[in-house]
Order: sequence, then C-alpha cells, then structure tokens
Amino acid sequence: MISSLTNKRVKELCLLKTSKGRKSSGQFIVEGRHLVNEAKALGILVEVYTTDEALEGELVSKEVMKKLCNTDTVVNQIGVCKKIESNVIADRVLILDGVQDPGNLGALMRSAKAFDFNTIFLGTGTVDPYNDKVIRSSQGAIFKLSILEGDVVDFINSLKGYEIYSTNVKNGVSVDEIKKAQKCALILGNEGNGVSDRVNSLGLKNLYIKISNTESLNVAVAGSILMYEMSK
Amino acid sequence: MISSLTNKRVKELCLLKTSKGRKSSGQFIVEGRHLVNEAKALGILVEVYTTDEALEGELVSKEVMKKLCNTDTVVNQIGVCKKIESNVIADRVLILDGVQDPGNLGALMRSAKAFDFNTIFLGTGTVDPYNDKVIRSSQGAIFKLSILEGDVVDFINSLKGYEIYSTNVKNGVSVDEIKKAQKCALILGNEGNGVSDRVNSLGLKNLYIKISNTESLNVAVAGSILMYEMSK
Repeated sequence: MISSLTNKRVKELCLLKTSKGRKSSGQFIVEGRHLVNEAKALGILVEVYTTDEALEGELVSKEVMKKLCNTDTVVNQIGVCKKIESNVIADRVLILDGVQDPGNLGALMRSAKAFDFNTIFLGTGTVDPYNDKVIRSSQGAIFKLSILEGDVVDFINSLKGYEIYSTNVKNGVSVDEIKKAQKCALILGNEGNGVSDRVNSLGLKNLYIKISNTESLNVAVAGSILMYEMSK
Repeated sequence: MISSLTNKRVKELCLLKTSKGRKSSGQFIVEGRHLVNEAKALGILVEVYTTDEALEGELVSKEVMKKLCNTDTVVNQIGVCKKIESNVIADRVLILDGVQDPGNLGALMRSAKAFDFNTIFLGTGTVDPYNDKVIRSSQGAIFKLSILEGDVVDFINSLKGYEIYSTNVKNGVSVDEIKKAQKCALILGNEGNGVSDRVNSLGLKNLYIKISNTESLNVAVAGSILMYEMSK
C-alpha cells in the first residue's frame, strides 16, 4: 500500500491536478467508480488507485487519496486516463472562444451531446477540458464527444461547407428564424467579454435569443438554447 | 479605520457569510462597487465598508476586507444589504425544489428575469439565494426578482389559476407542444435526484425537452430552455 505523501508516484500524480501536468503527460484523473468504469469501457484507463481492498486498483492510504482528490468529498477509487486523441469533425460543431468557467464548459458538453453537436473545438484561452470540475460537471459527456484544441480562427477558416454562426447581440439574427443547415458550427465567447475581436473581424453571421431588454444569459444557458434551436 | 480582525463588528459581519447568520439578521453582503451601487439604487443598502478613502463607506484595512470577502479576488468595497421582502406572485413563476448548486441558481435567476418569470419560489432545501456565489452568478438579476421561500407543496397548492408544470422524464409532454397559458409555473428539482417525491405525488403535468437518448441536461440549462419555450 502507498501511504507516504512524498512517494514519487504520488508526487507525479499530483502534477495531473494541474493543467500543465496534464498537457505534458497527455493524462488526466477521473474520480469515483462511475467515471473509472466509463473510462475503462472506453479503453482509456491507464492505472487505478483505491482505498478499498474490495475494489480494483493499487491500494493507497486515505491520506494519499485525499491528496490526489480535488474535492472535499474524497472518493475510494480514482483512475488515471490517457486523453482521447480525436480529429473527427461532426456535422454540428460547438466552438468555444475563451469560455473560462469549468461548470459552464461541463454543462455545455452535456448540452452538446444531448443536441448532437458531437465535436467541441476549444480555442486557446478556453478552460482545460480535463480540469476535475469540468469532468464532474460534464457528467460523462466529455467521454462521448470529439474534443479538439487549437487556434480558433485557423479552425474556423479550415471548416468547409459549414454554416457558421457567431454570437453577438449586435447585428444578429434571431435563432428561431434561421434555416437549418445540415452542417453547422456555433461559436460562443468568454463569460465577460464575449467572442474575441479576432473572431468578430471574420464577419460571420451572428445569432441572438429574444429576451427582455437589458438582461443577459449565462453562456452555458445561451449556448444550450442556441444548440437546442439549431438541432430542432 | 477598522484594522483588527477581532473587532466586534468584523465578527458580526463574518456571520453574514453563513446562511444561518443571514437568516437570523435578514441581511446579506454584496461585494464590489457595481453591486453596492445597485443595492443603493434599490434602497436596500444598510452599510458600506471600503479600503479606498476615495470611495463611500467606513474604512477598513485590507486584512479586514480579505476576511469579509468570500473570493480570492478581494474587492475594495462591500455593502451590507437588507433582504428584500416580497410576496408578489408574477404571472410566470419558477419553483425550485432542492436546487443545490449556487452557480445553477444564479444562472436560473438570470434566465428567469430574461424570460419574464419574475417570481422565484425557493422550496426548503434549495441553496440560500443570498449566498455570495449565487449573488455573483446572478449578475444582478437577484435584485430584480420577487423571491419567496417556504414549503414547496404548500406553495403549489396555494397557486390559483396557474398552469403548473413539473419536470420529469417519465410521462412528460414535449415543451414545444404545450399551449401557452397566461399564468404558469415551472417546477425544477435537485441536480441529482430531480423533483421530490412529495411534489411528484401531486400528479402535475410533466414537461420534457427532446434530446438524444441516454443524455441529460444541467438543471439550469434545462430550466432555461423550458422558460424560453414557455415565454415564446
């Protein structure tokens, strides 16, 4: 049983709690039996650690598990997973240009899956999708999506045959008035600042949702309503 | 200037960081100039504390301000507000039966305001609306809504002339197929468990959103799409 908090492997695993550590290793941690089993079924599970002899995995002490877990609710099993490499571009694509809140990204992943936006492109500056809070709030949707990362403008320019919509309150078209395209992409911006100037300067069509004046919607809510309408 | 962390008033203000303290005093704290000004305009501002001599309010040291603030981003002005007493029941009512996540409640408040659900009823067991995270994520919508709290079943039974919809995947009606009623109420349940058995046993109509099989939506997203459709 690993019980030392200064154990070499424990230190390495702690690096996976940081975005930098996940990037350099190509691995991330999932917490709890449910997610460990999902990762196993997908063939991306690399290692398992547990505090419970009855469960699969290398035994660690509760103190070590507490150090490896991100939440106050310490689980009895965690899995180290390898990131899923994907370059599949589905017919419906969600493009995120700087979404920062992990809960928002997780909720958007659930909505994307539910409304058949099976590819999510994460532009530079968007929160790390393998952040523990994103994984928790995505409720497993993260495993079912094709996730791509890179420069948002390069990606938009590479899309051929897609109807591409940005979101901007100015000069927009109401989402319930657009014709449905077979291949479409939706761009959402940062919580505070919206879509970046670089993307705005591309001159794409903008969508908006009819709401009471002076109000605004949370980005996960707005993005989900747009995906809901576009998938109708 | 108040600079002692053990100052009597500082200790009292710290109680407002807890749900219990807010309940017993009927007061809550808002952080940042923007919210302080909103509270002032509404006439609910009781006291102001600041670290900046150029701003309105009693001077406190940075250490005291850090103790009074809930986030790592320490602001330079906070306001103590009295809770807004309200018993207004608008034509559209959002009823929450155990929503737990502050971010979800904040996002739902924004959506409720945006889609003219101007009353929110918070059933026992729902997160405290005066929690700092709720206030932050509501982006000021909390000040513009009529907020009621109490027993959810008693409240539902007291509604007269309202079309009342619950949310339950079983035996539901698709939200885009309902006739719009002038007075309507929407019930949302807990993130993990949905609407409570007590509410389910009332035999209300259930709404659902058409999504891909086996997927599910974040409660703030689902509630917002339902309010969006009901307000169309």
